[in-house]
Amino acid sequence: MTANSWKRKDLVGLKDLTADEIKLILDTAKSLQEISLRPVKKVPTLQGRTVANMFFEPSTRTRISFELAEKRLSADTINFTGQSSSTVKGEALKDTVRNIEALKVEIIVMRHSSSGAPHRLAESLGVSVINAGDGINEHPTQALLDMFTILEKKGTLSKIKIAFIGDILHSRVARSNIWGLTKMGAHVVICAPKTLIPPRADSLGVEVTSDINRAIKGADVINLLRIQRERQTECYFPSIREYATSYQINREVLSHAKPDVLIMHPGPVNRGIELSSDVMDGPYSVILDQVTNGIAVRMAVLYLLSGVRKSAAKHGHRLPDGEVAVLGGKTGGAE
Amino acid sequence: MTANSWKRKDLVGLKDLTADEIKLILDTAKSLQEISLRPVKKVPTLQGRTVANMFFEPSTRTRISFELAEKRLSADTINFTGQSSSTVKGEALKDTVRNIEALKVEIIVMRHSSSGAPHRLAESLGVSVINAGDGINEHPTQALLDMFTILEKKGTLSKIKIAFIGDILHSRVARSNIWGLTKMGAHVVICAPKTLIPPRADSLGVEVTSDINRAIKGADVINLLRIQRERQTECYFPSIREYATSYQINREVLSHAKPDVLIMHPGPVNRGIELSSDVMDGPYSVILDQVTNGIAVRMAVLYLLSGVRKSAAKHGHRLPDGEVAVLGGKTGGAE
Amino acid sequence: MTANSWKRKDLVGLKDLTADEIKLILDTAKSLQEISLRPVKKVPTLQGRTVANMFFEPSTRTRISFELAEKRLSADTINFTGQSSSTVKGEALKDTVRNIEALKVEIIVMRHSSSGAPHRLAESLGVSVINAGDGINEHPTQALLDMFTILEKKGTLSKIKIAFIGDILHSRVARSNIWGLTKMGAHVVICAPKTLIPPRADSLGVEVTSDINRAIKGADVINLLRIQRERQTECYFPSIREYATSYQINREVLSHAKPDVLIMHPGPVNRGIELSSDVMDGPYSVILDQVTNGIAVRMAVLYLLSGVRKSAAKHGHRLPDGEVAVLGGKTGGAE
Repeated sequence: MTANSWKRKDLVGLKDLTADEIKLILDTAKSLQEISLRPVKKVPTLQGRTVANMFFEPSTRTRISFELAEKRLSADTINFTGQSSSTVKGEALKDTVRNIEALKVEIIVMRHSSSGAPHRLAESLGVSVINAGDGINEHPTQALLDMFTILEKKGTLSKIKIAFIGDILHSRVARSNIWGLTKMGAHVVICAPKTLIPPRADSLGVEVTSDINRAIKGADVINLLRIQRERQTECYFPSIREYATSYQINREVLSHAKPDVLIMHPGPVNRGIELSSDVMDGPYSVILDQVTNGIAVRMAVLYLLSGVRKSAAKHGHRLPDGEVAVLGGKTGGAE
Repeated sequence: MTANSWKRKDLVGLKDLTADEIKLILDTAKSLQEISLRPVKKVPTLQGRTVANMFFEPSTRTRISFELAEKRLSADTINFTGQSSSTVKGEALKDTVRNIEALKVEIIVMRHSSSGAPHRLAESLGVSVINAGDGINEHPTQALLDMFTILEKKGTLSKIKIAFIGDILHSRVARSNIWGLTKMGAHVVICAPKTLIPPRADSLGVEVTSDINRAIKGADVINLLRIQRERQTECYFPSIREYATSYQINREVLSHAKPDVLIMHPGPVNRGIELSSDVMDGPYSVILDQVTNGIAVRMAVLYLLSGVRKSAAKHGHRLPDGEVAVLGGKTGGAE
Repeated sequence: MTANSWKRKDLVGLKDLTADEIKLILDTAKSLQEISLRPVKKVPTLQGRTVANMFFEPSTRTRISFELAEKRLSADTINFTGQSSSTVKGEALKDTVRNIEALKVEIIVMRHSSSGAPHRLAESLGVSVINAGDGINEHPTQALLDMFTILEKKGTLSKIKIAFIGDILHSRVARSNIWGLTKMGAHVVICAPKTLIPPRADSLGVEVTSDINRAIKGADVINLLRIQRERQTECYFPSIREYATSYQINREVLSHAKPDVLIMHPGPVNRGIELSSDVMDGPYSVILDQVTNGIAVRMAVLYLLSGVRKSAAKHGHRLPDGEVAVLGGKTGGAE
């Protein structure tokens, strides 16, 4: 599949994508990755295009990652932060977004506490929508950067065993990863106390367990999910300490894992809860690689959705599929 | 009148402008409108110029519209948001703005809850000031985009009948429109419950009525004003429901209007109050055109105030008056 | 000393710098000062570089000054604002900053309420750190812009008598100035009620007094420090009025000062407290010059830390030491 054959207007979730589409995004990210390693981290690909970051839930890390991806592609960016209150649901949300669309914005990056909100907007609008996290549904770019990182370290996603440990029930990160990884042929295990495993989880094509030793045995990757302290008062687990006793990844637990296992976490980590400090800072951890790779993956999605590829073929940068695109161009003459 | 003959440092209100000046802004906006329809929505006109958006009242829509107008002209922008508290009134406000001026900012876009604040600052400062809404006084760029939209749809402002319906008393949008439209030869009607009509309204050169049928009969444009729910507790009207019963524009009311009437609203609309949902989304509504046109009008004001025209005449873009300016240039080489 | 011989990764305080290093920053600022006086206030020096402004304490003035300095050097900027709460101290703060570093940011500008926070981060990270104010410790770029302003007006820092009046105890501005000015050979006097003078102040190489007449007698510069009203309830002084009676600089007090004395203040000024309104707006005051000079000084620090100088020598702009650098280049072709 080539960049030219990308047909989707939106990226609302990995549930809808084919394995070929996921592969195209990851290949495109690979070709864009080196831009952030240059002294001049900027290409003119999206110059004069406008991207609106609409975050109806607080977010620092994902918002900044998108914003940098946009700026390194030379897009103009505007930031809209709001509350997912009753006033920005349903018709009012649609009106707000239609307004942004009327400003001749090309792409809207949206986070919203309501599961499915980006999907409904994408259907009714002409502008491209990228889901930056919707309720407990999907967070597709996070899953894509997780997959990119595994691919980078392990060379393949096929037959790889990946264990997700933590609050699967409320995790849009886990859901997007499950959709994506199973399509790519990976073996996914989810592991949590029973109260934090979604009902009918086994229908998702994954192995389900509450036994951490079973989960990590033979795992190539352990992907930890953040524990929200407020879940404790909601009685999903008795105490943070008890959770950590059973499910924390530390040196002792890792002695039963493969010697080349990767430790991943979408961040921010609760040090000493999901993960012991020494393991977090140790050689297995690729948590900071995930952060770095987030930029390349988001640049790839922005690039594919922008449709810029149609007018490309100028500056001699070779995309994964052999297409020649503007990606390699430089702005200005400072360097 | 040509862009070169524009002499004003500031745009604080339409009360002060001549019909020729208003016409020049609208003509300039017309020539800038196509920039937002290009794939590369950016010209280098204000490159290296700095615009500060100082919003002492919360605003998302107007702030984003200005910010995009600035970015499409390649200006550097900084955002300053504050509270219109006692600490940023009078001398303290002047000190804050003088500070921004000392940073060698060319243009300040200011919203403030205190009527007249931008006027007083414009007088005492060397920097250009654009009023983005001051108390219940003026919101000149909103009125200009309203006029631009009418001109675009109807071809003229002269002899056009425009009915404003809603909370005229507290509306800076209505006030700016009244100043502007009457100068341009339009026939303006204001229509509201008596408690929401300003004292001595008839001295403004407009027709005043509380009878909606009289207001919309023969109207070419119906411009609705947002009802603030908090006014109800202040006893300006008995209830939102009662207001809607008498003053809502819906299909039934519209059956008495001209068949080509335009429905306008500065937004955000309270669906089902000022306007029924079907009319809002129907063929008469030009509400989203207003949003789109806001960018062109604000680009025009920024361009005229910036004085860039003096150093123009290079890139072959022809301004309305025959002047050749930099407006048509492109940044970078991506396209 | 030349720009090429600048070796530091960070600017965390003036305590660590040599007189030569301070002189290099001030000389570099001098050469960058004219950029903000051009119609096109922008050079491509930091194009494609990313600067993150991480403000864990509220700040408008310093943040905007840095942001403009970055934009005038064509850097991409991201803004991160947070709370200096317990959750962003120690390990958690380090994790947050490591995340930003993983986004391939070149320079982090940081303000934090915890004295020493930027120093600790600078040691453990590869990214460059600029201290934009840490607790009551240092605010080096403010002191540098103060020194730059004195140098501009008086031609030298050596043998100049500078009196600091106000809350020395809690002032990072005073501390950075004391480190810097004494290294440059100035004679520094600090003057405040005894409760607002730090213990062992005389060990800092400055003259200490509570007598304002002694402080201003023969002073070339009077640099006032902001009085925080909340200190009154903490019993550092009996009342604002009493403080003003003894320590306010007004026309009467100034009659005992040198006729060419400079009045400085880091802002925002409490008019009528530290300073009478007529003196603030009078001919001695260089307070707005300080604001203007802040941009040039911050551009100089960003430039020196960025390491861009290594790849310079192209566009014919001569730096203070005779090195030819890219500073004089222009972006785009609009002018």
